[in-house]
Amino acid sequence: MKTAIRQRLDPATRCALILDEALRQFAERHYSVVTVRDVAVGCGINAALIYYYFESKDHLFRQTIGHVVETLVAGHQARRTGPDDPAGEIAAWLDMHVQLAPTIGRMVKIMADYAASKARDAATDALIADFYNSEQALLEDCIARGMAGGQFASVDIAKTARTISLHLDGIFHASASRGDDRIPQDIDDLRSLIATLLGTTPWQAVLAAD
Amino acid sequence: MKTAIRQRLDPATRCALILDEALRQFAERHYSVVTVRDVAVGCGINAALIYYYFESKDHLFRQTIGHVVETLVAGHQARRTGPDDPAGEIAAWLDMHVQLAPTIGRMVKIMADYAASKARDAATDALIADFYNSEQALLEDCIARGMAGGQFASVDIAKTARTISLHLDGIFHASASRGDDRIPQDIDDLRSLIATLLGTTPWQAVLAAD
Repeated sequence: MKTAIRQRLDPATRCALILDEALRQFAERHYSVVTVRDVAVGCGINAALIYYYFESKDHLFRQTIGHVVETLVAGHQARRTGPDDPAGEIAAWLDMHVQLAPTIGRMVKIMADYAASKARDAATDALIADFYNSEQALLEDCIARGMAGGQFASVDIAKTARTISLHLDGIFHASASRGDDRIPQDIDDLRSLIATLLGTTPWQAVLAAD
Repeated sequence: MKTAIRQRLDPATRCALILDEALRQFAERHYSVVTVRDVAVGCGINAALIYYYFESKDHLFRQTIGHVVETLVAGHQARRTGPDDPAGEIAAWLDMHVQLAPTIGRMVKIMADYAASKARDAATDALIADFYNSEQALLEDCIARGMAGGQFASVDIAKTARTISLHLDGIFHASASRGDDRIPQDIDDLRSLIATLLGTTPWQAVLAAD
């Protein structure tokens, strides 16, 4: 990547490379201690070039989160099935989490760091809130469609969507905190959990089928 | 607290006050940037006094995690019901999480910071692993007893225990990251989730009863 970024790149590609490096450094250390210069060194470029694209470290941080959110949304769009398949759409959201696990793990970490710090930036707050609101809306929409179509049992839509969303957070948080590399397995268990909540397969029957 | 700590305190009380302050600072900032001096200033004491109890910042950090783990275990012991009440014992574990929510939120944060950093300390690693292993063992034991006593449906014990544990992680992680102060409500929803998994109340009936 260091060689690649020295080459003449179109602005979008170069920005993406800078944002990937920023994400890695912000997640491994802490955004309060990472400097724009550190990110530049990691990319093998001059800090001035980063300032050409991003006006400040805050701007770079915000764009880093925005870049991940865009990647996730695009990843989900690419895996979406038809409008009549709400179960498939929930499965696509989970598949995307398995596929992009390292990136999501880093995002989860920097969002937690930012939230725990006293620093507040309205645009960053809005971006994080938007991400979770979109996830909640996507899950609620799928559950409502599945209920309307008779594929799912009748459940409390908001509560069920939040349960799935919290569980995803738990899987990524635990993977980092406990250091046990179990994301695909935990997400498979979440698939069983969702099937149980939506009344398609009882939790016990899932066991019997194992 | 600043006044209290200046007074002549017994070593155990003074240590607990130092560890509470260390936990607060490590969680709000990042353990890599917090110095022993910062913790001393926060306690209103001289750094030398901290070094009297803790040989290094690493030692202080490790003891901070150990102190929280002890608090949690004691909190659960105090709420435990009899050996014939596995459902009550799981409920006590959740109650303890509601009661000690701010402390657990900070612990979850510093464990994530430590895990994401490149710093490795065998004793700290063991402490974190022990905590999660004890939680898993406690939940597995309750589920197994409930199954044996016919109160719970027959389920995959390890998978069900891990599901509960991951969900707890998700609740605390989300509370911090999303900044939505919903821990008691989310833990109540987890009670419904557990009742569903253990076959005592279907997820839909939980809705109807709301």
